[in-house]
Amino acid sequence: MKIALLGAGRIGRVHARAISDHPTAELASVSDAFSAAAESLASEYGVPVLSADDVFSSDDIDGVLIASSTPTHSDFLERAARSGKAVLCEKPIDLDLVRTRHCLAVLEEYPVTCALGFNRRHDPQFSALKTAMDSGRIGKLEMITITSRDPEPPPAEYIAASGGIFRDMSIHDLDMAAWLLGEPVTEVTVSGSCLVDPAIGEAGDLDSVLINLKSASGKLVNISNSRRACYGYDQRIEVFGSKGMLEARNETDTQLRFTGAEGVVDERPQWFFLERYSRAYAQEVADFVAAWQENRAPLAGAQDGLAALELAEAALISYREGRRVLLSEIR
Amino acid sequence: MKIALLGAGRIGRVHARAISDHPTAELASVSDAFSAAAESLASEYGVPVLSADDVFSSDDIDGVLIASSTPTHSDFLERAARSGKAVLCEKPIDLDLVRTRHCLAVLEEYPVTCALGFNRRHDPQFSALKTAMDSGRIGKLEMITITSRDPEPPPAEYIAASGGIFRDMSIHDLDMAAWLLGEPVTEVTVSGSCLVDPAIGEAGDLDSVLINLKSASGKLVNISNSRRACYGYDQRIEVFGSKGMLEARNETDTQLRFTGAEGVVDERPQWFFLERYSRAYAQEVADFVAAWQENRAPLAGAQDGLAALELAEAALISYREGRRVLLSEIR
Amino acid sequence: MKIALLGAGRIGRVHARAISDHPTAELASVSDAFSAAAESLASEYGVPVLSADDVFSSDDIDGVLIASSTPTHSDFLERAARSGKAVLCEKPIDLDLVRTRHCLAVLEEYPVTCALGFNRRHDPQFSALKTAMDSGRIGKLEMITITSRDPEPPPAEYIAASGGIFRDMSIHDLDMAAWLLGEPVTEVTVSGSCLVDPAIGEAGDLDSVLINLKSASGKLVNISNSRRACYGYDQRIEVFGSKGMLEARNETDTQLRFTGAEGVVDERPQWFFLERYSRAYAQEVADFVAAWQENRAPLAGAQDGLAALELAEAALISYREGRRVLLSEIR
Amino acid sequence: MKIALLGAGRIGRVHARAISDHPTAELASVSDAFSAAAESLASEYGVPVLSADDVFSSDDIDGVLIASSTPTHSDFLERAARSGKAVLCEKPIDLDLVRTRHCLAVLEEYPVTCALGFNRRHDPQFSALKTAMDSGRIGKLEMITITSRDPEPPPAEYIAASGGIFRDMSIHDLDMAAWLLGEPVTEVTVSGSCLVDPAIGEAGDLDSVLINLKSASGKLVNISNSRRACYGYDQRIEVFGSKGMLEARNETDTQLRFTGAEGVVDERPQWFFLERYSRAYAQEVADFVAAWQENRAPLAGAQDGLAALELAEAALISYREGRRVLLSEIR
Repeated sequence: MKIALLGAGRIGRVHARAISDHPTAELASVSDAFSAAAESLASEYGVPVLSADDVFSSDDIDGVLIASSTPTHSDFLERAARSGKAVLCEKPIDLDLVRTRHCLAVLEEYPVTCALGFNRRHDPQFSALKTAMDSGRIGKLEMITITSRDPEPPPAEYIAASGGIFRDMSIHDLDMAAWLLGEPVTEVTVSGSCLVDPAIGEAGDLDSVLINLKSASGKLVNISNSRRACYGYDQRIEVFGSKGMLEARNETDTQLRFTGAEGVVDERPQWFFLERYSRAYAQEVADFVAAWQENRAPLAGAQDGLAALELAEAALISYREGRRVLLSEIR
Repeated sequence: MKIALLGAGRIGRVHARAISDHPTAELASVSDAFSAAAESLASEYGVPVLSADDVFSSDDIDGVLIASSTPTHSDFLERAARSGKAVLCEKPIDLDLVRTRHCLAVLEEYPVTCALGFNRRHDPQFSALKTAMDSGRIGKLEMITITSRDPEPPPAEYIAASGGIFRDMSIHDLDMAAWLLGEPVTEVTVSGSCLVDPAIGEAGDLDSVLINLKSASGKLVNISNSRRACYGYDQRIEVFGSKGMLEARNETDTQLRFTGAEGVVDERPQWFFLERYSRAYAQEVADFVAAWQENRAPLAGAQDGLAALELAEAALISYREGRRVLLSEIR
Repeated sequence: MKIALLGAGRIGRVHARAISDHPTAELASVSDAFSAAAESLASEYGVPVLSADDVFSSDDIDGVLIASSTPTHSDFLERAARSGKAVLCEKPIDLDLVRTRHCLAVLEEYPVTCALGFNRRHDPQFSALKTAMDSGRIGKLEMITITSRDPEPPPAEYIAASGGIFRDMSIHDLDMAAWLLGEPVTEVTVSGSCLVDPAIGEAGDLDSVLINLKSASGKLVNISNSRRACYGYDQRIEVFGSKGMLEARNETDTQLRFTGAEGVVDERPQWFFLERYSRAYAQEVADFVAAWQENRAPLAGAQDGLAALELAEAALISYREGRRVLLSEIR
Repeated sequence: MKIALLGAGRIGRVHARAISDHPTAELASVSDAFSAAAESLASEYGVPVLSADDVFSSDDIDGVLIASSTPTHSDFLERAARSGKAVLCEKPIDLDLVRTRHCLAVLEEYPVTCALGFNRRHDPQFSALKTAMDSGRIGKLEMITITSRDPEPPPAEYIAASGGIFRDMSIHDLDMAAWLLGEPVTEVTVSGSCLVDPAIGEAGDLDSVLINLKSASGKLVNISNSRRACYGYDQRIEVFGSKGMLEARNETDTQLRFTGAEGVVDERPQWFFLERYSRAYAQEVADFVAAWQENRAPLAGAQDGLAALELAEAALISYREGRRVLLSEIR
């Protein structure tokens, strides 16, 4: 499968590596609005730099991987669909619900293999948790607890364009919750603060939030987010049910342990998403390629992107209005 | 210090043992509305059975430990105060806010050493967590996560008289949150379900709840409660701040580990509060005796009982009305 | 059961507490060559100070607990047997094999309940390990690994009178190995060094040793001893068999965990035997009392003391002669 | 660097993958006495099948990786040296000491980059342990404990040609000990049994051994080997010193934990060396390539192979003669 990469930034480089390492995928080209970035990455892999127009008009390209800046996602996604190319799009489709729904309509008209970059669904540990849960290990699911903290707050300019913590950061956890629940979320209730960085508060955003979800059958979810954890990327999930509990725990580079006068010291969690989800990114591309080859739906698709964005929207309203928000108000 | 025990049930027996084991305290008498229970426990310790009237009129008794049924607490507490006896009262003072406030007024008029049975504050592990936090180990506190699950749901008749999950079960966690925060809670937001036992729902109660608190300076707390955890008493606390995180973890009888074809197996948590908090009960009596001897406030007092009940009240309103409740509405 | 305590030093105080806390045992008296120590401890418990002669001639005393200095053990033990009193004797019976065998002969002539202070057999965790192993959890036992390290080396004068590391320190581990094996040890092979404290080497002793045992059916044991572990008392046992492995791990005061920039930090092991084996000492007295009441053998008896001393003797010969020593050479 | 692979079996395939994934190395050819195996692997990577003669006479090949059967190692190694090619040779050079020493003499005459396949030195966790130890984390090293157990015993025909447990299995641990000690081993003392599989005993071999080493300055090492651990590949190292202890612990695929009525269950260790040391194999090739490029010694060389074989030889003598063996007897 020949895949054109749109976007040669940090996450674009991760995807280029994953495509290149895949046994049957092939990096076909690199595009980027910033040509030096495109050229540097393209030469590293010995592939041509193409304009986006060239990519969408090429007969030789089977799929595109959209890793460009967020505002370009929806347009590239629609062009991919209209040109009949499979597409793996980094989240979000768009920060705006109306625009996102429009994309889904286009995809309905021009059905192509469309995967959305909810990379965490592809993490081997979360995957094993889901499999164990689905096999009945914890009996009937009752509660989910997701702890998700970044190591460091992003710069103020990033915050300004991010769409806010719910759409930018929590959205990964909202998707994870939706995926694990396996049934619709019906209610969202939120508490939030700005505790980490006053600049975030001045930008009208929050940096510490608690999001509670309730599903159609009454299952409960708590998501705990912070923009700063001095010990690294804190990514834990606990699912609790009638027959027990499963915990996905933080990962470390090694299992080395030191015991000394100050106590028993293990490694801190891996620092950020590039380390923690390196296996997930490879698996995400593998699932995309397989979905295209087998003409099946990928693990995460555009509909999941819309669903997560609706949850983020509900969370924002809940915080602003200090009340429980029903998803029926949003959908 | 001569202490009269009011109430010879399960928790009364725990306190009798703690008083008897204390180097300077002495079990003076046992009282119980059910005389067989009083006689059995009294004879075990070689002490007389007294009526409550005798206790309060005795010149020989320094303090009373109220471990009788909840509806009797407030009356006994007031009689203890009026008769000038120190008092350690099992939580709650009363399930009703007005009645509780009346007790506090009486205590103000007749000031005696008054401790409230928030046993968890005396747990060595939670105590060590608080000490480490207060010493700056995690920097500035930002978020608290309390997981608190009972091993098995109580019988339906217990539920009926319990005052509901917030006043009966969550109240321990609400007090813990208040104690750890060290500043007033200003907002409460709740989600809840009946997932464990339909009989609980039929009694108008919940068995699975998520309670979010926000403090005066914006710190966030999540409390997660369930009436049933098949693996035992799940009692965990996580405090998260600018310089790290402290976790109080479940305790086991031994550190024995088995590794076999099925994996690496450690002991499950201790089954329930009598095992888990055995050290805390001893420490609670020790603190009560020391507070009386040193004429200082005990670690948890009547005011803390009122504060926790107000939080429970706010939680109930939040759940019923689907909104953020300000504590200023309650106080 | 009325028990006279011989020896009012550190370990004597531990036993006094255990006797006093036991529901049916009673501390009858305290004796010590150093009268101030005897008086201080006796007055703490409100019991008389007696001479050893008075103890052995008293009709009122059911048993004696020998916690005096090592050179007095064998004589006290024989006098206890001859006077028909049950006896719990701190290890060792004597540092000399011939003297020890003489004691056993006296005990055969005057059979009384005789327990030997191998406290670790009474530790709840090791006890649970033994029970699990005996119930078949690890299948057929193949290898045992015992790690046993003291926090700090003893002073030079202690070393001089100790009988050397094998008879003084390793003897506990040799007894543990013998107990867990449940069959005779047939071979001993040793390596050793003086790495911790040159004063120990100058006294002709070792401070770091590896002892390998082989049992009648070929099972293997490794014991690793050091006189100094800066992180506390390191007391671990691993038993390995055809169906898995059981590990008894170090114990801590609490389960509190800190995660910060420097890693994930748990408490270090408890500092020394008084903390680590506090439950074992209580259980040891309980077993002694029960053995006397039920007229059965205690968990560890004089024969076990002899067997462990023989292993220590074999270890010393193995080290000195640089060869495998058969137990048949010793017995 | 163009590398010819000699040997297309299981371990040959691992090396082919590592060479192919390396950014500057290139798999040049595949050779195998069994031509179908060579052809299958060669076609997978699109490289030619060559005879060994062609390899050694080719001007186009920079190095050879010897992954053929043990009896061919020494001859291939010498031919590589004589033809001036760098060589990475799977351990052992030869099972015979005299033959091995001859190889070293040839290497002295024809000096080429020569790496020996002690893969564990390249494991990231053991590597981190060594780095931490060398940086002084545990103070002065005193004792090393290596636990190394295979998941399943090899078939009887493998045992027959293996050279026995010391030369075949323990040799990895002996090399690890030598590497960690950083000073010569002077004494070896061994205990051993056949407990796992009677067929191993009938073949004159052992399946369960304890090897104690002592170094020039008196440091002690215990190696514990078993041919069968039902829970997977047990690969642990503990280094203990004056300021603490470092432990390399078993690795698992994920950190998923289940808590249920039966306890807290973590994943068992990875099954065998292909999983456990996958990162080490890649790192081993990387070190080989870098050593060749930088004209420096690789992390493990032929001299280390000889040293480990001498230790294995001493271990065998110690077992057979029931005595401490000095390395000066062997060297």
